[in-house]
Amino acid sequence: MSWNSFGRVFRFTTWGESHGPALGTVVDGCPPGLALDESAIQPFLDARRPGTSQFTTQRQEADAVRILSGTFEGRTTGTPISLLIENTDQRSRDYSEVAQAYRPGHADYTYDAKYGFRDYRGGGRSSARETAARVAAGAVARLVIPEVTITAYVCEIGGDAIDPASFDAAEIGRNPFFCPDASAASRWEALVDGARKDGSSLGAVVECVAEGVPAGWGAPVYGKLDADLAAAMMGINATKGVEIGDGFAAARLRGEQNADPMLPGATNETAPRFTANHAGGIAGGIATGQPVVLRVAFKPTSSILIPQQTINRAGEATTLATRGRHDPCVGIRGTPVVAAMMALVLADHKLLHRAQCG
Amino acid sequence: MSWNSFGRVFRFTTWGESHGPALGTVVDGCPPGLALDESAIQPFLDARRPGTSQFTTQRQEADAVRILSGTFEGRTTGTPISLLIENTDQRSRDYSEVAQAYRPGHADYTYDAKYGFRDYRGGGRSSARETAARVAAGAVARLVIPEVTITAYVCEIGGDAIDPASFDAAEIGRNPFFCPDASAASRWEALVDGARKDGSSLGAVVECVAEGVPAGWGAPVYGKLDADLAAAMMGINATKGVEIGDGFAAARLRGEQNADPMLPGATNETAPRFTANHAGGIAGGIATGQPVVLRVAFKPTSSILIPQQTINRAGEATTLATRGRHDPCVGIRGTPVVAAMMALVLADHKLLHRAQCG
Amino acid sequence: MSWNSFGRVFRFTTWGESHGPALGTVVDGCPPGLALDESAIQPFLDARRPGTSQFTTQRQEADAVRILSGTFEGRTTGTPISLLIENTDQRSRDYSEVAQAYRPGHADYTYDAKYGFRDYRGGGRSSARETAARVAAGAVARLVIPEVTITAYVCEIGGDAIDPASFDAAEIGRNPFFCPDASAASRWEALVDGARKDGSSLGAVVECVAEGVPAGWGAPVYGKLDADLAAAMMGINATKGVEIGDGFAAARLRGEQNADPMLPGATNETAPRFTANHAGGIAGGIATGQPVVLRVAFKPTSSILIPQQTINRAGEATTLATRGRHDPCVGIRGTPVVAAMMALVLADHKLLHRAQCG
Amino acid sequence: MSWNSFGRVFRFTTWGESHGPALGTVVDGCPPGLALDESAIQPFLDARRPGTSQFTTQRQEADAVRILSGTFEGRTTGTPISLLIENTDQRSRDYSEVAQAYRPGHADYTYDAKYGFRDYRGGGRSSARETAARVAAGAVARLVIPEVTITAYVCEIGGDAIDPASFDAAEIGRNPFFCPDASAASRWEALVDGARKDGSSLGAVVECVAEGVPAGWGAPVYGKLDADLAAAMMGINATKGVEIGDGFAAARLRGEQNADPMLPGATNETAPRFTANHAGGIAGGIATGQPVVLRVAFKPTSSILIPQQTINRAGEATTLATRGRHDPCVGIRGTPVVAAMMALVLADHKLLHRAQCG
Repeated sequence: MSWNSFGRVFRFTTWGESHGPALGTVVDGCPPGLALDESAIQPFLDARRPGTSQFTTQRQEADAVRILSGTFEGRTTGTPISLLIENTDQRSRDYSEVAQAYRPGHADYTYDAKYGFRDYRGGGRSSARETAARVAAGAVARLVIPEVTITAYVCEIGGDAIDPASFDAAEIGRNPFFCPDASAASRWEALVDGARKDGSSLGAVVECVAEGVPAGWGAPVYGKLDADLAAAMMGINATKGVEIGDGFAAARLRGEQNADPMLPGATNETAPRFTANHAGGIAGGIATGQPVVLRVAFKPTSSILIPQQTINRAGEATTLATRGRHDPCVGIRGTPVVAAMMALVLADHKLLHRAQCG
Repeated sequence: MSWNSFGRVFRFTTWGESHGPALGTVVDGCPPGLALDESAIQPFLDARRPGTSQFTTQRQEADAVRILSGTFEGRTTGTPISLLIENTDQRSRDYSEVAQAYRPGHADYTYDAKYGFRDYRGGGRSSARETAARVAAGAVARLVIPEVTITAYVCEIGGDAIDPASFDAAEIGRNPFFCPDASAASRWEALVDGARKDGSSLGAVVECVAEGVPAGWGAPVYGKLDADLAAAMMGINATKGVEIGDGFAAARLRGEQNADPMLPGATNETAPRFTANHAGGIAGGIATGQPVVLRVAFKPTSSILIPQQTINRAGEATTLATRGRHDPCVGIRGTPVVAAMMALVLADHKLLHRAQCG
Repeated sequence: MSWNSFGRVFRFTTWGESHGPALGTVVDGCPPGLALDESAIQPFLDARRPGTSQFTTQRQEADAVRILSGTFEGRTTGTPISLLIENTDQRSRDYSEVAQAYRPGHADYTYDAKYGFRDYRGGGRSSARETAARVAAGAVARLVIPEVTITAYVCEIGGDAIDPASFDAAEIGRNPFFCPDASAASRWEALVDGARKDGSSLGAVVECVAEGVPAGWGAPVYGKLDADLAAAMMGINATKGVEIGDGFAAARLRGEQNADPMLPGATNETAPRFTANHAGGIAGGIATGQPVVLRVAFKPTSSILIPQQTINRAGEATTLATRGRHDPCVGIRGTPVVAAMMALVLADHKLLHRAQCG
Repeated sequence: MSWNSFGRVFRFTTWGESHGPALGTVVDGCPPGLALDESAIQPFLDARRPGTSQFTTQRQEADAVRILSGTFEGRTTGTPISLLIENTDQRSRDYSEVAQAYRPGHADYTYDAKYGFRDYRGGGRSSARETAARVAAGAVARLVIPEVTITAYVCEIGGDAIDPASFDAAEIGRNPFFCPDASAASRWEALVDGARKDGSSLGAVVECVAEGVPAGWGAPVYGKLDADLAAAMMGINATKGVEIGDGFAAARLRGEQNADPMLPGATNETAPRFTANHAGGIAGGIATGQPVVLRVAFKPTSSILIPQQTINRAGEATTLATRGRHDPCVGIRGTPVVAAMMALVLADHKLLHRAQCG
């Protein structure tokens, strides 16, 4: 029930501020005996790492993870896994401006309204740096669900979408946008760079597909797999919408268009064959055995160089242009975070299913 | 952490199947001293009640609620409030068809995959009848947050949207669609009736606005108000998408278009004045003091008379046309459920905020 | 996290007041496919039922349980099991005395201090009638752990203890005290009857043994089996102490006296043979495979006819002799409650162990 | 619900093994604005620190705490507080003996039974070193409840009890036993030293009193203050029993002996005056406003030099004398841990009470 933990039986807690000495996560409930060392986590952090292209923030962080507990001789012991990532590039600068004025679209005002004051250095706890801890925890979660393959990619930036016909999973790792469509990736270079040069920013849509999720994971009513996924995704910084399967488009279909008819599976297979997947792999909160598909809407980065009207802590009018290092399109680096949250929810539901149904 | 409870400190648990003797909810954590008798709950259940027009299922249920505990001399005592609603119109019929074959789009197959068998009478626990319990609990939640006004309405059916310029809140209660646009309501009569006569069904989008939510409710990271709302809404039967504020449309905006600039509030007001509300009243998981706005996508009812390909429990091919009584557009009666879930999440966050911040 | 729920994945919620229309429980997380109808629950309620001898309260309640949800064709479905017990003997009487004055040792004053007012009829929610719901839930829990045999009995009343050498499990059901020593049971008749006639009451110690708990159930640190048992037992009405194994006596032993040495198990058995069980079957929060043994101290019933000094709601001095129907020794009827809580904790830990360790 | 977290709204999670690089805790839900730096925590860790006398283990650990998050400019921000303590004296030694054989009374066998293998270095996660994290978290909890004064002390070692008539709180800090009776402390020197020289160990009883707890903290049924305290105390390493107020002695009293009569409070005071406190300050799970009093039984340290019969991982008979550095009476250093757990439970209940009752 705590505010900084997520999950039910596979559960992680994160801590840390953008400009504190470090950030980290404690992963609890992990099954014992899984092979785990830093090398199983680092590649996922590297994918999310800032400063790797001109399309992301120029903050330089190695995001090197250390395992402080929970493993012995290279395997998980079943006890809590503490993961630590040091902050190394907390640039020494003058924060007096953001300390006094509220950046529109940011959590500056709401933190002050809630807590009475805030750590304004780099956004403090509200910074997207927290998502490094999610990605680290997600890497552990992936070990729990070896039967599942998770693919996440950006399918739209600033309203310019990929062409599904050009989808090529191998392309995702070849461009700085996690884009599965080479042609779109090429267009986005100019698009994102233009926004950056204008001192503006762009929104994006990230899609995530989990294949291999067995029928039966998930649960009814208030433990629904799709509800947990919705919470997981809506809790990522800058997200404003979540869809499962056809999502909002399903609201425009008729019943027979939206059906996912079932046929007998292949010989010697007990699983049925579905002729469509409008449902995105979930019915009644429980996985159908089809790929779990969801989309997440990221708003454009709120930190922009274009001056905006705002107020200061005294309630007086001022204008603010957010200087500093920022992602021109926060959805790009959100992609590994979406994948991590998918893994974390699925690992939890695998263990929950096992708890109740053996 | 249980599968049939929702909320953190203001928490409710529901139980009951579509064709069992009754259904109900236990509301826990309610503050003491609030005036509560059945008359505070019944009107909300009446709004959701089936059988009131040709645009909803013809099942006849009084949905009369009884308070079995938690009140004394008309006030809440602080102890759990047990609410009971009897099922009275479980029509005696032959279930052999749905008992054997899986209705596409329903949870029939997934319940069997998870539990090994299922209560097939009217969908059992996966029936939308469960939402009566949410509405009852939501009526209690509303007593906890008298400062908040919640309005929910259908803004789109089958792709036909209301005209925002014609929005009239008073209209919502005057038509069977919870529609705030008289002209759209008029169009929808033909639209929904046509789908019903075709043996088909339609999807819908429901919008919900909560005014009066104080800045500061909500919490960062994994206790975010928007994440909890996303889980609440995505857990309602037949929902496939949730948006906060501009939602997916925000992903198509540039940073300066999506900003919510702040100005000093009126004289003698500490709250700022926002000149826009793209964020839907939430920043960093915490309420800004603006209206909290969200939209929920409902798929078309899966139960349709048009025959669909499916398989039976033995895995053999068959076709199934879902007879019985069904809503031609399940989103319509989902509207009071969306409002109830909004109330339940906000009540919980009010108490959570008080716990930590006094 | 709610105040009226207990358990982690096998979780139950209770509701109801002593003089309300009914009380009940919702059991969540129960594995599917277990044979369950009212006859599996009623015998445990009958054992706890009041009014069966002169050594218990004369309130007459059939405590007939009804299953309202969660089963289909005589088996659990995996959905929440709602159990209802009607109150039938809420004797019409004058409550003005207890409504105004606080009964010493009761929760009258503390409920008022916490909530500002209280349901004073028969103690409201603080009445031991709530334990009927625990016993009903416990009967469901027993179905989850068929490998475990639970035995609970009174081992001491008013300082008069059983003779361990005379222990006979078959005797427990033959006397009104759940006493495994026929001779002690005979002495207790006079002892309890004497206290009752004096208008006084007696304390008791209840012992509970669970055999068949596999090594490995339980968990370290904050999910310890003994910590969960301690919470379970200390939460029963009128309990003031809990011991595991040798308990407080262990604090008076030297290390070598308190050791539980291990020997190889019998041929073809992987489990070791322990030559002692000072630990009461739990080490490091995890079951050793030996019997789980605990003892619970019940204070004497606070409701006595002997007048006591107290104050009224206005803070003025008064005296109060608690009239009404009361158990002269509340520990006796606490025995089936202790056994039920043991079953509930063990069922939860079985499922938790399965979640993490498969 | 996780296995390594404790608390409901004021909640902490611990991690770390005895011989890993570090251990720590994440404290979540702390109110904002409280003055906090390392100096507010270190004195409590120093009180629990090993190696300070011949009556405790000779392991040398500075137990220097570092705050890694959750504060800004010396005050809590409301975000999670991460506390880190490095292990510095993990003596390089040969663990092959304990790696292969199970130490009787330890969790060696049960960890293997649960997880299939274990980190055997110094007991791994089952080591009492974990309690340093509790003490650190407890220091934060104390800041949340400035109205409460907590005093913990050893009242009995090896069956030799203090004389209540000689109780002097000032004495507690003057001897290495946290003993409030100078004469008993003097006797215990010889007693504990004798056991140590014999290669044996002694049990102890620790008493803890919390003064200033307002009437109304706590909650009924499954959120009882005494039940939470019981779980908190029974989860400390080596504990086997917990009593509230008179505890097991209450089971030997008659109703009129166990009563806590109430008189009007002093003029201008709304709180009543109780003429006794058999209940230990809790009735119906809710604080009465009297001192909260409990006692905890610690078994003798299981690690002793006297050889004991046991088995190895292959199930073969062997004998084992636990070499290494151990406390001859683990209850002594358990005293600050008991006080910390008291603070943690009370802080949680203060916030919970505020959540529901404002």
